[in-house]
Amino acid sequence: MTRTGMGKMSAMMQRGVVFSAECPSRAILNHVTSRWGVLVLVALRGGTLRFSELRRKIGGVSEKMLAQTLQQLEQDGFIDRVSHPVVPPHVEYSLTALGEEIGSQVESLIEWIETNLPKIMMAQQQRLA
Amino acid sequence: MTRTGMGKMSAMMQRGVVFSAECPSRAILNHVTSRWGVLVLVALRGGTLRFSELRRKIGGVSEKMLAQTLQQLEQDGFIDRVSHPVVPPHVEYSLTALGEEIGSQVESLIEWIETNLPKIMMAQQQRLA
Repeated sequence: MTRTGMGKMSAMMQRGVVFSAECPSRAILNHVTSRWGVLVLVALRGGTLRFSELRRKIGGVSEKMLAQTLQQLEQDGFIDRVSHPVVPPHVEYSLTALGEEIGSQVESLIEWIETNLPKIMMAQQQRLA
Repeated sequence: MTRTGMGKMSAMMQRGVVFSAECPSRAILNHVTSRWGVLVLVALRGGTLRFSELRRKIGGVSEKMLAQTLQQLEQDGFIDRVSHPVVPPHVEYSLTALGEEIGSQVESLIEWIETNLPKIMMAQQQRLA
């Protein structure tokens, strides 16, 4: 690795650069803003939920996609997974401290979209007219 | 459509519900948080850019994906596209007022990720240990 390359790497460790395809922050951004990642983070802001409760709350998600999304966010350190050794298995998910922080960012984005939906739909119709 | 169905529709027009798969806010959320949508919105916060400038700024995006992302965000009313009738064609993209608002939400999410990348990477390593 060249000197410049190393300088670039250590700068990345201090702060990410999402516009750079190689920066690890790009992968985090993709997990957090994935189709179901956004909704999982916001769903868990209300407190701990079981897998089946999450699935009911998030309209349209498949079992497979929910499991994959939870695993990604757990690996990134945003979600804690606690499995209680009972039959049938009882698995609970909750946000870590980092997860709460990023969850509040994502919630504010979703709040904006939900609140401004009528304005957005009007803008869409004006484009079509 | 049942009375309940109609009540639900008009409630949606007042405010979206992203947890409902059928609500139009879900599609908006998917466009805005798409792999390249996030980066396009933030890139344009700095001002008007040409297609080639956007492509240079956003590491890793293909011509096809950038064009598709811009078209989606234009249809949602977040981006203005101005085509100057010259040879070779000169096309410029900028944020609308709505686009500026949602762009600032997305920028704040990205800022959080870039700033907290070292903490996130430490959390990831602790999981692996």
